[in-house]
Amino acid sequence: MGKIKAVVSLGHDALGYTTLEQWDAVKETAKALADLIEDDYDLIITHSNGPQVSMIHKAMTELRRIYPDYTPAAMCVCTAMSQGYVGYDIQNSLKAELLKRGINKSVATILTQVTVDAYDDAFYHPTKRIGRHMTAEEAAMEERKGNFTVEDPGKGYLRVVATPEPLHIVEIEAIKTLSDSGAAVIAAGGGGIPVIEQNGSLRGASAVIEKDSIASRLAVDTGADMLIILTGIDSVKIDFEKDTERSIALMNTGEAKKYLSEGQFGEGTMKPKIEAAIAFLEKRPESKVLITSLSKARDALAGNTGTTIIK
Amino acid sequence: MGKIKAVVSLGHDALGYTTLEQWDAVKETAKALADLIEDDYDLIITHSNGPQVSMIHKAMTELRRIYPDYTPAAMCVCTAMSQGYVGYDIQNSLKAELLKRGINKSVATILTQVTVDAYDDAFYHPTKRIGRHMTAEEAAMEERKGNFTVEDPGKGYLRVVATPEPLHIVEIEAIKTLSDSGAAVIAAGGGGIPVIEQNGSLRGASAVIEKDSIASRLAVDTGADMLIILTGIDSVKIDFEKDTERSIALMNTGEAKKYLSEGQFGEGTMKPKIEAAIAFLEKRPESKVLITSLSKARDALAGNTGTTIIK
Repeated sequence: MGKIKAVVSLGHDALGYTTLEQWDAVKETAKALADLIEDDYDLIITHSNGPQVSMIHKAMTELRRIYPDYTPAAMCVCTAMSQGYVGYDIQNSLKAELLKRGINKSVATILTQVTVDAYDDAFYHPTKRIGRHMTAEEAAMEERKGNFTVEDPGKGYLRVVATPEPLHIVEIEAIKTLSDSGAAVIAAGGGGIPVIEQNGSLRGASAVIEKDSIASRLAVDTGADMLIILTGIDSVKIDFEKDTERSIALMNTGEAKKYLSEGQFGEGTMKPKIEAAIAFLEKRPESKVLITSLSKARDALAGNTGTTIIK
Repeated sequence: MGKIKAVVSLGHDALGYTTLEQWDAVKETAKALADLIEDDYDLIITHSNGPQVSMIHKAMTELRRIYPDYTPAAMCVCTAMSQGYVGYDIQNSLKAELLKRGINKSVATILTQVTVDAYDDAFYHPTKRIGRHMTAEEAAMEERKGNFTVEDPGKGYLRVVATPEPLHIVEIEAIKTLSDSGAAVIAAGGGGIPVIEQNGSLRGASAVIEKDSIASRLAVDTGADMLIILTGIDSVKIDFEKDTERSIALMNTGEAKKYLSEGQFGEGTMKPKIEAAIAFLEKRPESKVLITSLSKARDALAGNTGTTIIK
């Protein structure tokens, strides 16, 4: 059997929520990824960054309160920092895990920008909540700066940013070159750094690209044989948390669309994963999608658990 | 003429000191780098991160004061974040500058770890000052945590970290693969993330690798034809700030060593650059080193200014 090129999307469970949690979590993540590499998968790894970018955003905001000479760090800068932080931890742990197993393989993180459309509807209706709770006064100040906030009843106000669709992965050629050379590549962390192409510049955008959406695009653009979405549950459920709940082992995109239209999948949790799967399979009908948990990845690839989606 | 592979080392002037300063500075830096690319240089770009890692270190420390549930961010994590931050800004501006000039070329940042020796003498004599001034009480707390501090008379105390020698660039194969494919590669920012290979893991070290030292190593390991060190002055001076001051247009490593032994070059400024140049040329005697300022880079490569060093 030849090598199988797979894009692996890691969720929050793979990384934990604080620096020390992440340090422990990525060691387990590295084992799961090394298992796949041993099983002849060429991996392009992408990851969420919610807790990490939130931590960095808070830190940069607090810094400014104490040292007013520091200018504010835009959301795109915080995302870039989070790619550095998470990318380092993953490449460090994965490289060490491979060395332990006697596998000499390049592991590298490529900082990744993704263009979005300045006129994407999402910019008019920002919904992604970021950062800490603010007072009404702080929220008003954010609004004056051109940022958006929403009230979180009883808790205060939160900043919200847009979640536009990805148009183009700026560093896609570098990602493909490295992956084709046999390296395990970590890319487009946190959905990628969103930028808007405008008057010959790539202007950082106050936005967050959904990680499922970018994982799907990464899989299409690298010609992946598989998209592996690792999340908190072992397989996709129908009638989730009802008496009639059941796991799906295999479905095609027609069935997936039917379940979507029935509202079977949670907004912001399973729904975007199923949509990402469908988008990938419509562009690459010979490929497959697997949705399972990190700890079950190898088992699921052997056909014992998880949900496989085909065209 | 074929392509010339050059490692370019960018100093603080290329980046500025705050987020907004950096945003403006990298645009000028991008123009200088794009000039070299137009002149048929294949670039591997490395950069300092002093002000950036210091900002991030401060931010992460302040965060912890306000939200005690956040665990401390180690120096290696701050360096990783700074590679994300600075790498993003450089690749963003350089890509945009190349697009403006109609040049379709990959530009990518590779997060870079560098192994150091746990028994490097530098760990017993840390000298690199980082972060903000602390009170005697705060300094004592740092010492209890196993960190080192020094008194800065009249101003307080500063944390100091070790500056060990680089042993091996962990991601060197990925850097070479991308560079050989024609991409402009940004790597080993801030000297690289120092790690210690120990019991099958790559443990992040409380240390900073000097950027001149890693630039030299990067140039050796990628087989570069040139090492271009861009700094605050147009050329290297002898009898600096004396009546007999003169610029050096060309010198060989023998002359450089003689000047070094005379103490002609400033500790922590020009001396490490000259040492880096010598180290590179001793490994790659057919190659050349150029030391000049960012704005004079193209002019210096044309032979009109700057200091060239040969074996």
